Amino acid sequence: MSKILDGPLLSSRELRSRNHVIALPGGAELGGRDVVLMAGPCAVEDPSQLERAAEAVRANGARVLRGGAFKPRTSPYSFQGLGRRGLEMLRAVADRLDMAVVTEVLTAEDVPLVAEHADMLQIGARNMANYRLLEEAGRSMRPVLLKRGLGATIEELLLAAEYVLAEGNQDVALCERGIRTFETATRFTTDINAIPILKQRSPLPVVLDPSHGTGQADLVGPVARAAVAAGADALLIEVHPSPQEALCDGAQSLDPVGFARMAAEVGRVAAAVGRGIG
Amino acid sequence: MSKILDGPLLSSRELRSRNHVIALPGGAELGGRDVVLMAGPCAVEDPSQLERAAEAVRANGARVLRGGAFKPRTSPYSFQGLGRRGLEMLRAVADRLDMAVVTEVLTAEDVPLVAEHADMLQIGARNMANYRLLEEAGRSMRPVLLKRGLGATIEELLLAAEYVLAEGNQDVALCERGIRTFETATRFTTDINAIPILKQRSPLPVVLDPSHGTGQADLVGPVARAAVAAGADALLIEVHPSPQEALCDGAQSLDPVGFARMAAEVGRVAAAVGRGIG
Amino acid sequence: MSKILDGPLLSSRELRSRNHVIALPGGAELGGRDVVLMAGPCAVEDPSQLERAAEAVRANGARVLRGGAFKPRTSPYSFQGLGRRGLEMLRAVADRLDMAVVTEVLTAEDVPLVAEHADMLQIGARNMANYRLLEEAGRSMRPVLLKRGLGATIEELLLAAEYVLAEGNQDVALCERGIRTFETATRFTTDINAIPILKQRSPLPVVLDPSHGTGQADLVGPVARAAVAAGADALLIEVHPSPQEALCDGAQSLDPVGFARMAAEVGRVAAAVGRGIG
Amino acid sequence: MSKILDGPLLSSRELRSRNHVIALPGGAELGGRDVVLMAGPCAVEDPSQLERAAEAVRANGARVLRGGAFKPRTSPYSFQGLGRRGLEMLRAVADRLDMAVVTEVLTAEDVPLVAEHADMLQIGARNMANYRLLEEAGRSMRPVLLKRGLGATIEELLLAAEYVLAEGNQDVALCERGIRTFETATRFTTDINAIPILKQRSPLPVVLDPSHGTGQADLVGPVARAAVAAGADALLIEVHPSPQEALCDGAQSLDPVGFARMAAEVGRVAAAVGRGIG
Repeated sequence: MSKILDGPLLSSRELRSRNHVIALPGGAELGGRDVVLMAGPCAVEDPSQLERAAEAVRANGARVLRGGAFKPRTSPYSFQGLGRRGLEMLRAVADRLDMAVVTEVLTAEDVPLVAEHADMLQIGARNMANYRLLEEAGRSMRPVLLKRGLGATIEELLLAAEYVLAEGNQDVALCERGIRTFETATRFTTDINAIPILKQRSPLPVVLDPSHGTGQADLVGPVARAAVAAGADALLIEVHPSPQEALCDGAQSLDPVGFARMAAEVGRVAAAVGRGIG
Repeated sequence: MSKILDGPLLSSRELRSRNHVIALPGGAELGGRDVVLMAGPCAVEDPSQLERAAEAVRANGARVLRGGAFKPRTSPYSFQGLGRRGLEMLRAVADRLDMAVVTEVLTAEDVPLVAEHADMLQIGARNMANYRLLEEAGRSMRPVLLKRGLGATIEELLLAAEYVLAEGNQDVALCERGIRTFETATRFTTDINAIPILKQRSPLPVVLDPSHGTGQADLVGPVARAAVAAGADALLIEVHPSPQEALCDGAQSLDPVGFARMAAEVGRVAAAVGRGIG
Repeated sequence: MSKILDGPLLSSRELRSRNHVIALPGGAELGGRDVVLMAGPCAVEDPSQLERAAEAVRANGARVLRGGAFKPRTSPYSFQGLGRRGLEMLRAVADRLDMAVVTEVLTAEDVPLVAEHADMLQIGARNMANYRLLEEAGRSMRPVLLKRGLGATIEELLLAAEYVLAEGNQDVALCERGIRTFETATRFTTDINAIPILKQRSPLPVVLDPSHGTGQADLVGPVARAAVAAGADALLIEVHPSPQEALCDGAQSLDPVGFARMAAEVGRVAAAVGRGIG
Repeated sequence: MSKILDGPLLSSRELRSRNHVIALPGGAELGGRDVVLMAGPCAVEDPSQLERAAEAVRANGARVLRGGAFKPRTSPYSFQGLGRRGLEMLRAVADRLDMAVVTEVLTAEDVPLVAEHADMLQIGARNMANYRLLEEAGRSMRPVLLKRGLGATIEELLLAAEYVLAEGNQDVALCERGIRTFETATRFTTDINAIPILKQRSPLPVVLDPSHGTGQADLVGPVARAAVAAGADALLIEVHPSPQEALCDGAQSLDPVGFARMAAEVGRVAAAVGRGIG
């Protein structure tokens, strides 16, 4: 890559005016006509938990299975994920249900391993400015789901995407997941303005994560609907068969019944803005 | 008023589990089945400007006319509003079009004057903690549209409402209008999480102001749709017949064509969540 | 006042390059060579409490007595202050100890009453954008201590000062008292950068309130020293004879021993930057 | 390492009540009696630039040379640093002047290379939650300068330090470098409250970076003095022989004359709080 900028950013509408579509196995098209549901547990815990979550979300329209095998944790003493075994479980369940897998990769060295098992690499909020990881994800040629840092501006998110794009990898989806503000009633503040701003500036698909954006299961539905109404191309949602027993993020995870209700409601809002769920 | 709290806040669901509805002249019911559109110019400038704005918003479903006669301005050298003459124009135009008037009152002394002309008193973000003004608005027994301070938490907004409610005035609507954050791509950050949180905690109607929440006319539509999808009971929107000539907030004002488009889109989203525009 | 701006702001260094000094009864000169200590209880509670606090701070170098007679409270159910009786107590104690009185005024109507008893009018953070109050304080010709709103920018603080200055009242001191940020370890975040920025831009005296800026008594000393090292002209500090019994802000109030220690430490830092305590 | 927490954090005062001192080559003792100056250019550009900067800071009391060989840049099109050659230059210049070297390491893989040339590894704000890098830095057994993320809380900074400490490496210094807030007059908001809070909670040395905390060379002096007055153990300061020609961060870099003045002023404040410069 020659790190020289002559002209507009690769992520800008100036270079590509039409929406960029990322096609995934299982039929989801990020940035296409339909709104894509990406759902599953915060962390892969065991085969049964993963299967029950996956079946529940697949039955309600999700074509992309999310789930953490490598978990970035604020404290070194928290559960850190199952690693390779988690990846294998994700792959097996997704194959059986004809879904795509998106999962987080924490380090540049892990990119080949994760890319071998997953269809899309998630770069988490904490790593948005981990440039070595961004470059390696770029070189993997796997689609990348890039989450906004919780203290990062929209412009910085677009510049982080540039690190992936500059490697020749065009398949980057931009994910709003809540920012740090003074408000303490919710874990983060979902920046809903970011959805239309990102759609204006960039042809890349825009995703919203209402689970992290709110931190509370009973707010996920309303904010998911809001995101679709504002133009989001996809939702990333945490679902656990028994949220109260989850090893991480139980408070913000939907259970299968809650996901079904949310998906139905989101479907109606999607129709109101001329889209389906797909 | 005896300023003694024994028991839950007057603004809480604990005291009143059912939604509180504020009925306004012209037929709007804030907090009722339908989503209410409150629209008009940032500032009343002259009869022709006000009429053209009012007719445009009335024709597209707005039953409440907004417009500033007393303007709080960051700089003492900016246009400060027409005062009483502006109130009279608002009243005359609203009566002719069978609309209600909501307009800002800046000081406790002005409450009687504004209450004489307006159907609903707006307390602006800068005055959310102006307790003397809140009390006087409470005593006026006019419905109050209380805007969240740009550095105020959701809890503080509810406690500010308490100052009005404690005077015996139950008709308070809570308005999210964007908060101060580190993001500079938009003028403020619309706190979409605040909509479902306020609806959970309080039976009072919840309003969103996407004009101030974004500061950019081309973001008003997407964020207005998002608000309704998230459960807002009303929208407060700035509309000017010629935004580029506006004496204040031109950049965030819709023109009549833009308002018509937004209203149609919002109507479809409202239907998707089981509501109409009314 | 003619609200027309032709030229630089009245608060800017462009108009007055030399520091503006506000001389108060009792000998304090805000903005002069020496650092001024303004101290006393959050709220005036009773004569004995006020006297003990005043004597303690006077004995340790404070020439200005602070204390709230009218208290702005987030909840209408909290103690609201003693009003006129509190003002009279402040005046009596200050006269006996040859100190100046600074106390908050909450409404425009109260300006004459407060101006009758106090030597300096405090406009609190919640009222920084209460323009009617600013104008009335301007017209009173009493020196004004203007606190920065907790969600207000430095530029907005300077524009708020402009409302006072435009009335012909030149005696405005600008007070940093902590802003709202995502950090929750302290009640507010003291914006220490604001001290040198304000000194650069404006000839007006700059005050820091470490009691509100931190919200914790054991942080007041370090942040008070920091403020003086950064160039603050005065400190505004809450002191209570028995903080654990205070009716408001006990957690951030120093006791007399703590104040004496802080004053001695601040004195050494002041000397290091070429100033005294006066 | 067994990632199991039984008891207080390794970074807490509960385990070690006495200040932890990190001794560096050249004689600096971070966390000891004297305040340590760590200074040098943002990026190592060429031997002449580095030498002139190093000589200037050494002559004015700095015993630790800072300088970036690997630069994390928001845009992939900005200057990325000289890499290994930059490290070699730092080593050579520091050896000649009897200084220690602190320099940033961006990736876990680079830790051995950087640890070979540097005396202290800097983990930058963007990488505060790059846990793989923290662990590798921990295993290197080199002292670590850990910068707070610009959207990270104080608690998260302490938990990030835990990743290093849990590897058995006790030599971690905690660095406040400004946080993201709504204020735009400065590049970041220096959280001065963080200094005494960190000193209370942890025995680890606390560093402040006024260059990044303010983003403006003319604010560096006042905020550096404030940090020392508040109890900081060290300052990290950008110095360039010709700031206007710097390849990065020129606006916030002091020139040699500015550094000399700042060091003298800081020395006087250090003396006022019972410390020297060393």
